Amino acid sequence: MQYHLEGFRPGDPDIAEAAPGRPAPDRDFEEPVDVLIVGCGPAGLTLAALLSGFPGIRTRIVEQRSGPIEKGQADGISCRSMEMFNAFGFAEKVIRQGYQVNETTFWKPDTARPDLIIRTGRIQDVEDSLSEMPHKILNQARVHDMYLDIMRNSPSRLAPDYSMRFVDLYVDPREPNHPATVRLERLDPDHEGEMVTVRARYVVGCDGARSRVRKAIGRELVGDAANQAWGVMDVLAVTDFPDIRCKSLIQSASGGNIVIIPREGGYLVRFYVELDKLAEGERVAARNITVEQLIATAQRTFRPYTIDVKDVVWWSVYEIGQRLTDRFDDVPDGDVASRLPHVFICGDACHTHSPKAGQGMNVSMGDAFNLGWKLVSVLQGLCPPDVLHSYSAERQAVARDLIEFDREWSRIMSERPKTESETTEDAPKFQRYFIEHGRYTAGLSVTYKPSILTAKAAWQALADGFAIGSRFHSAPVVRLADARPMELGHVVEADTRWRLFVFCPSGDPARDDSAIVGLGRFLLDAPESPVRRYTRGGENVDTVLDLRAIFQQAPRDLALERMPAFLKPRKGRLGLIDYEKMFCADPKPGRDIFDLRGIDRHRGCIVVVRPDQYVAHVLPIDAHDELAGFFGGFMLPA
Amino acid sequence: MQYHLEGFRPGDPDIAEAAPGRPAPDRDFEEPVDVLIVGCGPAGLTLAALLSGFPGIRTRIVEQRSGPIEKGQADGISCRSMEMFNAFGFAEKVIRQGYQVNETTFWKPDTARPDLIIRTGRIQDVEDSLSEMPHKILNQARVHDMYLDIMRNSPSRLAPDYSMRFVDLYVDPREPNHPATVRLERLDPDHEGEMVTVRARYVVGCDGARSRVRKAIGRELVGDAANQAWGVMDVLAVTDFPDIRCKSLIQSASGGNIVIIPREGGYLVRFYVELDKLAEGERVAARNITVEQLIATAQRTFRPYTIDVKDVVWWSVYEIGQRLTDRFDDVPDGDVASRLPHVFICGDACHTHSPKAGQGMNVSMGDAFNLGWKLVSVLQGLCPPDVLHSYSAERQAVARDLIEFDREWSRIMSERPKTESETTEDAPKFQRYFIEHGRYTAGLSVTYKPSILTAKAAWQALADGFAIGSRFHSAPVVRLADARPMELGHVVEADTRWRLFVFCPSGDPARDDSAIVGLGRFLLDAPESPVRRYTRGGENVDTVLDLRAIFQQAPRDLALERMPAFLKPRKGRLGLIDYEKMFCADPKPGRDIFDLRGIDRHRGCIVVVRPDQYVAHVLPIDAHDELAGFFGGFMLPA
Ligand SMILES: Cc1cc2nc3c(=O)[nH]c(=O)nc-3n(C[C@H](O)[C@H](O)[C@H](O)COP(=O)(O)OP(=O)(O)OC[C@H]3O[C@@H](n4cnc5c(N)ncnc54)[C@H](O)[C@@H]3O)c2cc1C
Ligand SMILES: Cc1cc2nc3c(=O)[nH]c(=O)nc-3n(C[C@H](O)[C@H](O)[C@H](O)COP(=O)(O)OP(=O)(O)OC[C@H]3O[C@@H](n4cnc5c(N)ncnc54)[C@H](O)[C@@H]3O)c2cc1C
Repeated sequence: MQYHLEGFRPGDPDIAEAAPGRPAPDRDFEEPVDVLIVGCGPAGLTLAALLSGFPGIRTRIVEQRSGPIEKGQADGISCRSMEMFNAFGFAEKVIRQGYQVNETTFWKPDTARPDLIIRTGRIQDVEDSLSEMPHKILNQARVHDMYLDIMRNSPSRLAPDYSMRFVDLYVDPREPNHPATVRLERLDPDHEGEMVTVRARYVVGCDGARSRVRKAIGRELVGDAANQAWGVMDVLAVTDFPDIRCKSLIQSASGGNIVIIPREGGYLVRFYVELDKLAEGERVAARNITVEQLIATAQRTFRPYTIDVKDVVWWSVYEIGQRLTDRFDDVPDGDVASRLPHVFICGDACHTHSPKAGQGMNVSMGDAFNLGWKLVSVLQGLCPPDVLHSYSAERQAVARDLIEFDREWSRIMSERPKTESETTEDAPKFQRYFIEHGRYTAGLSVTYKPSILTAKAAWQALADGFAIGSRFHSAPVVRLADARPMELGHVVEADTRWRLFVFCPSGDPARDDSAIVGLGRFLLDAPESPVRRYTRGGENVDTVLDLRAIFQQAPRDLALERMPAFLKPRKGRLGLIDYEKMFCADPKPGRDIFDLRGIDRHRGCIVVVRPDQYVAHVLPIDAHDELAGFFGGFMLPA
Repeated sequence: MQYHLEGFRPGDPDIAEAAPGRPAPDRDFEEPVDVLIVGCGPAGLTLAALLSGFPGIRTRIVEQRSGPIEKGQADGISCRSMEMFNAFGFAEKVIRQGYQVNETTFWKPDTARPDLIIRTGRIQDVEDSLSEMPHKILNQARVHDMYLDIMRNSPSRLAPDYSMRFVDLYVDPREPNHPATVRLERLDPDHEGEMVTVRARYVVGCDGARSRVRKAIGRELVGDAANQAWGVMDVLAVTDFPDIRCKSLIQSASGGNIVIIPREGGYLVRFYVELDKLAEGERVAARNITVEQLIATAQRTFRPYTIDVKDVVWWSVYEIGQRLTDRFDDVPDGDVASRLPHVFICGDACHTHSPKAGQGMNVSMGDAFNLGWKLVSVLQGLCPPDVLHSYSAERQAVARDLIEFDREWSRIMSERPKTESETTEDAPKFQRYFIEHGRYTAGLSVTYKPSILTAKAAWQALADGFAIGSRFHSAPVVRLADARPMELGHVVEADTRWRLFVFCPSGDPARDDSAIVGLGRFLLDAPESPVRRYTRGGENVDTVLDLRAIFQQAPRDLALERMPAFLKPRKGRLGLIDYEKMFCADPKPGRDIFDLRGIDRHRGCIVVVRPDQYVAHVLPIDAHDELAGFFGGFMLPA
């Protein structure tokens, strides 16, 4: 963590200094805003947390509930979401407080006695090399809390406006400043029914599966004709089932199945009980399912094991179809070239998943993280507003892909076990599929297609392990100045900056003819340098593009004093040196980052990483024009 | 982290439910207390944080300042202190926010040009196998904040009473309940000069080097006749000295030396400048040393490197002698057998160190951690009050040892470098000494002598790596129930419980004739079982003695359902199963915990660990009588 750059400030560095006038003492609910977020679920709060770091952007987030939720809903946090949490600074807290999914076990009916279940497999849940972050389970309410803390401690001291319901909106695309007019209804007892009208530059509907924002822009969730009903309960229980503290997938003799998710704190456990598929248009409420029925189903499936439920903390019967919206913004299909988006939808508002693959909360947060930095960049004048088209283009494809996976996965899990053909020893199909698709559940299957923001793979061979379009896969390095062993990916913060990771060739980087020295000269001096073009006067040299160099040498084989000056940039009003730009390969783990990520040791390369941690480009260190050209494709000169 | 045992409770599990009536709305300053702590330094706050977990104990902590400090004073956090912070739950935060000491570098005058310094060595600061925790640097003020958070979030919602000065005290040993009468003076503008009288069962003076509590019990700091003067400054500066982000020890040509401590946040750096030794009785203030002089000295010593100080955040010239008090409590020397202690002193109040070895804050916290659990155990009726004698006995020896080390270390550092006999390539003496004594600086040299609380080493050979009297050295394991890889030592929380780590022989632990089954039978059934004798009705089975079993098998080679029932204890009002009592050796790192700690694989052993993380005993698993006898030596039957 870097702080005290502008002089010492006492107290917790996680609590930023409040921007002038924040928090605003008297709120004018009708004041126009830059971004109006509807809904305090994982999507809305991810977006709000990111925007709260920019007090120059006026953000408001409204929520119809009267306050934060305390329990229930989703709980799976994929490795990918953990990587994002790390950029926000609260991954450690989730690691400490949450349950960690280390193994997943598989159960099915015994061929000899189909009324009893037996374990068919036990696998490591996340492959060792997939991510430096674990797969965690923590209640959605606690995830909300983490974001609310970020907002509370941000310079803008952002807090949700609870008890405010989005009613409808109207967009006038010719209106230059605040094209969206939104009507909100106050729900708090003192103002019940009062309407508030807010004008906004952008509106983001993070208002869940029954999104009114979606309806207001005339979009529809399409997909499954009928819903699948699920029973879910969080319980404190006593059982002799040996895998109660492992994620367990149980196929019952009837073909339905149960998923067990051990929960944070060591005692709580969640049961998902798959219920019947509903008829088209049927609502599960009509079935009057009780928690006693869920418990009875669980008990029946569990035999020969018993379960004695001591306390039901939360339960719900809910219905879900795998559904998707065709676009995630308000631009009509044919008008992409002529019209800019002003309203966006994120999360369950545009795609719904079964709980089986644990995607709901994760994909929703991923949507918001994708949209967030684009909104910031446009509102700060760094990018033209048409980069906002990429949000729907990128995330709709991701959602489509994940829904496809979810559908296939649900189908396989619900297949009646073939007790005839498969012997007890055989790994059943659902177990094999689970292993093969670990990247999906870990949130690591996302790959953005080439676009203005993601380059074509011309030089991918320079770094095989950093696939363009997929997330930057961290690996261990050692920081040169202080010899600190760390994860390279952890230099990425949720601050909407671009990163250039420059992996240097094996020669002496300090020589005047080295590739890195040449790159530095270009970035500092050339008129077409992206650093020069996009960084404004008075800003630090790394405000827009944050460059980090990684050397193949061990720290003791490089002399800090000889390293190029641009890798020891002077920053802030005091002109202090930032010593955190240079890293060395860490030889201790056996294979260093160059080996692990298949980097060409002879040529090296630049890996360009987007603010949302996705690899945008891999190119030779001396491809200066190409580097300039890439950023020229979507950035505005300062 | 385990929580929700007594039913689900929403919100942050790090924030405990307030005990009834806490925080007290109207404070009666004269209400008698169980423990009165004087001083909010590292010692006082460690003790207060520990006691705040026990709302049944009435604790008050007073401080003469008007509020928490914001900068200055100590900043070194040894590995050992980090282990303790981990038990309090805030080690991760310190790791994230603090500077990490990875390398220490050594500099001395160039033999060829003695006015210029050259690097003579660069060493890894903490040996790989010393501790799972790093050596950190973080301002004392931030350490205070961490403890204040623990107190604020504790069930007793303890907060310091600022602006209250301890004046004197009087102890009446015949008074059974509150033998100490303390006079405090209020310093806040509204009540300035008002005296408050408080009666206390115990008083703990954590009031620093000029302790009035020490004076009140007639003790004195003895040691160095004269003080050493030090200049210290925390600065934001620009320099070309290449090791400015490493801890660096610089011997100057004049023989004085400079210590550089890089600080948290990446920019701040601390300089210690050794000044002249003062004459006996001389005060450094009389020398009118200015920060400009300190900067000039640093600049002179730094040649050929330059340093341009941009901002002085904090500076001080302070004087310190290596001094020690003969006893750390109020029992006169000859009266140990006949009189119980009621007043204690901790930290700088009883021993002072030079800043060179970075001990001050660490030893002070260690004192309080040692005293804390003993006070809790006595106040809860678990131990007779004479265990309190052990505080002075144990910690005075530790302080003596560390002052000895500090003195030797200071002497060696101040030796004029032998430019004649040593070549530039030779590692100078101070570098060799530093390496040899890494255990001291890491806080790991502490070894308690045999006493009622620390057994004689009769069976040490069963676990060579867990030396009796030294701190329990963690190693990696995998938790059986959920296959979670973790550090075994991290099950120890700052909750004043004793731990029994049972390392099992290689055979099947589930067999009825296994050693662990035999131990379980003894602990649950035998009338002399310490679990039965000291655990009260209604308490969980692990409230006093928390047993954890470690198996040599991999998790997949053990069946949870076959494991002895006492390792799956039922707890709380709902009788839920605690699944966190069983661990397996982790084969992944190459050598497992049995190898790493030299445990007899054939016989296994019990390692008894004190509430302050020190190994109290190592004994065979079937040494039931000896186990009972050990606890019988200092515990009271329930
Ligand atoms: C009752 C329930 C139970 C669930 N259970 C599970 C589960 O067991 N497992 C699982 O994986 N997933 C579950 N989910 C789904 C999971 O919670 C979602 O996938 C995830 O929360 C999506 O995040 P989101 O931010 O897109 O939407 P949501 O979390 O749904 O958040 C939307 C927010 O918008 C608010 N809102 C809605 N309309 C308006 C309006 N007009 N004005 C203002 N605010 C509005 C809502 O109150 C809500 O707070 C459940 C969802 C619900 C609603
Ligand atoms: C000014 C100063 C600078 C220091 N600089 C360094 C340094 O650079 N490096 C280093 O390693 N160590 C330094 N130290 C020493 C280091 O801070 C101590 O070793 C460490 O803080 C010891 O902790 P403690 O809790 O025992 O005492 P302290 O931290 O000294 O805490 C004692 C507390 O008691 C309070 N107090 C004192 N008398 C009374 C009274 N009568 N009534 C109520 N409250 C009272 C004090 O205000 C203080 O808050 C410094 C100490 C001081 C005082």
